[in-house]
Amino acid sequence: MDDKLFLMIPGPTPVPERVLLAMARSPIGHRSSEFAQIMEEVCERLKWLHQTRGDVLILACSGTGAIEAAIVNACSPGDRVLVGANGKFGERWVDMAKAFGLQVEVIAAPYGQPLPTEPFRAALEADTNKAIRAVIITHNETSTGVTNDLETIASHIRAHGEALAIVDAVTSLGATTVPVDAWGLDFVGSGSQKAYMIPPGLAFLAVSERGWQACERSTMPRYYFDLRQYRKALKKFNTPFTTPVNLVFGLQASLQMLKNEGLDNLFARHARLRDTTRAAVRAMGLELFNPDDQSASAAITAVIPPPGIEVARLRSALKKNFDIIVADGQGEMSGQIFRLGHLGFVSDRDVLTATAALEGALRSLGYDRFTPGSGVAAALSALSG
Amino acid sequence: MDDKLFLMIPGPTPVPERVLLAMARSPIGHRSSEFAQIMEEVCERLKWLHQTRGDVLILACSGTGAIEAAIVNACSPGDRVLVGANGKFGERWVDMAKAFGLQVEVIAAPYGQPLPTEPFRAALEADTNKAIRAVIITHNETSTGVTNDLETIASHIRAHGEALAIVDAVTSLGATTVPVDAWGLDFVGSGSQKAYMIPPGLAFLAVSERGWQACERSTMPRYYFDLRQYRKALKKFNTPFTTPVNLVFGLQASLQMLKNEGLDNLFARHARLRDTTRAAVRAMGLELFNPDDQSASAAITAVIPPPGIEVARLRSALKKNFDIIVADGQGEMSGQIFRLGHLGFVSDRDVLTATAALEGALRSLGYDRFTPGSGVAAALSALSG
Repeated sequence: MDDKLFLMIPGPTPVPERVLLAMARSPIGHRSSEFAQIMEEVCERLKWLHQTRGDVLILACSGTGAIEAAIVNACSPGDRVLVGANGKFGERWVDMAKAFGLQVEVIAAPYGQPLPTEPFRAALEADTNKAIRAVIITHNETSTGVTNDLETIASHIRAHGEALAIVDAVTSLGATTVPVDAWGLDFVGSGSQKAYMIPPGLAFLAVSERGWQACERSTMPRYYFDLRQYRKALKKFNTPFTTPVNLVFGLQASLQMLKNEGLDNLFARHARLRDTTRAAVRAMGLELFNPDDQSASAAITAVIPPPGIEVARLRSALKKNFDIIVADGQGEMSGQIFRLGHLGFVSDRDVLTATAALEGALRSLGYDRFTPGSGVAAALSALSG
Repeated sequence: MDDKLFLMIPGPTPVPERVLLAMARSPIGHRSSEFAQIMEEVCERLKWLHQTRGDVLILACSGTGAIEAAIVNACSPGDRVLVGANGKFGERWVDMAKAFGLQVEVIAAPYGQPLPTEPFRAALEADTNKAIRAVIITHNETSTGVTNDLETIASHIRAHGEALAIVDAVTSLGATTVPVDAWGLDFVGSGSQKAYMIPPGLAFLAVSERGWQACERSTMPRYYFDLRQYRKALKKFNTPFTTPVNLVFGLQASLQMLKNEGLDNLFARHARLRDTTRAAVRAMGLELFNPDDQSASAAITAVIPPPGIEVARLRSALKKNFDIIVADGQGEMSGQIFRLGHLGFVSDRDVLTATAALEGALRSLGYDRFTPGSGVAAALSALSG
């Protein structure tokens, strides 16, 4: 059916009607006082969402651009960094850090498992010369549905005293708590097409006071992502380069919605969507790619299809029969897992629907090792629990 | 009156209703076959607009990001470049090239005047060692309303044989002819919020075959703007990082409109808007900041206010009385000139309206050195000529 597709991928996520309509307005000048007023409001709300008194910048780029901005402003060529890698995004930051001439030490975990925190503690504690400039952590690994223990790793970074905490919070910010100030995070990047409930095109970067000091010291060549220019512009509630004003109209609408919901409800909703999805998937006899509930992502659930059921055919059945889009695995995980996104503008009804549709799709492909309705029953039970 | 403002600034420019509505759709996955189909269509039309058989990339950034992408892929640290500077944007590329460690030789002209072409010829001819890696030219200097003689400078670059032509076509692409292949241009950057008639958030970069070879050779550290990744993704009508899909929906609608109008009509319309604006301004006894018709921009007209009339008060009168926004001068030109944008979704009616409103605003501020109606009469005469 035309126009009926529902996105349950890790981004873009569904966008509320009022956000779409807010975007469908004639642009205004990005240097106008009217726009500065909007920027003042959204910057205040971004701070609220980031649980910070520091600055949150709006960049015109994808989430990858926000992490690059953090790296090129925090570090200078040759700097030593620790990078956590347990999925495609962690690996991307390894590649990026190397591309910018950093000395990269990788702390890895297998796909589907959380990063161990102990090697971070050990490496930071051993660094008595304070040579480690930054630690780069993917909070929620979108490619596998694993949430790393950022709180613990951040505590080791704080104990080190000099290293900067650079966090990819692209799919965690707004879905799970990221208390930027309380955890002492220095650069926290995220993207609009995730829990923000707006289309892609904006990225956000929280910068701590220590982060700003690092920007002044960095000798990395940079211009478009030179955060010093953004900070200067922010004082007038502006951006150094033309900002996507219509997406900011959408952001204004979505932040009002998030504010109305409240942080506690927002995080509780995502936790409930996660628990419900996991309960349903288990009830159908499917295997969770990340079996550990403790590190299960609130934003996305990765599932191993039953033996004999191809991911491509399952995705196709969900799309064709029920107009639901779920994601394939990324890179070499393609065909190994499918990923259910449940972040942003997603309600209990949506995961219930996805569960019912998944039951139907699995049946249609001949998988019958579950009692019909058991997925939905488990989901309803989790929701009422 | 609420929601009645009409933008006559150099960007963002007015956006057609059908483009706004195209953007107000639920996003689709940027890795979906449905999106690849849209990308295939828009990439074909972008080639048409650029008059090229080469690649035109879509980047998620502002126009400044597109020029940075060109520079960091064309050049390596220490490379020698010539940069034309006769306004704020030319100066920005000088700063940017220096930020990336290039040896910059500036060829300048006073604000309001076109770049001389002879020094480019001389510098390139003298470079028998072929040490000049690239020449960076702002085609249309948005800050002053001057169009530089890109055709002639490009011919000197071609005669050199090695130097790459990097062009800021941010406010010229779509407003005036930029025949990328015929002029042998290697990197041509532009932005969505100009003649493309869509809101800010997308940038475009045409890359020649020679440009691609340079990307392979460049040793500049880069990641988000590493064009090799974009080229690879483009083969599947995709982008390496999440693209602003809703802006691409808008792009699809706007390119259909531009295609319907046709290149000749598009350029003739902008030339007519320029000539009409200039005739009207002159008839009111005002001074054009760029008095030379030959190099007058088809996108924007900069005007020196009459003695005793402050730019701020004139802009305020236009806004308050007639809901028209015109731009101030940039940087140190603030208060010295005002700038009328007439690019993108702008018709004869709009410049006629602006002329009448300008007459009224000038009168209301006490400027009476013109016969009432003479601006409009000159505009109508220019339009019918």
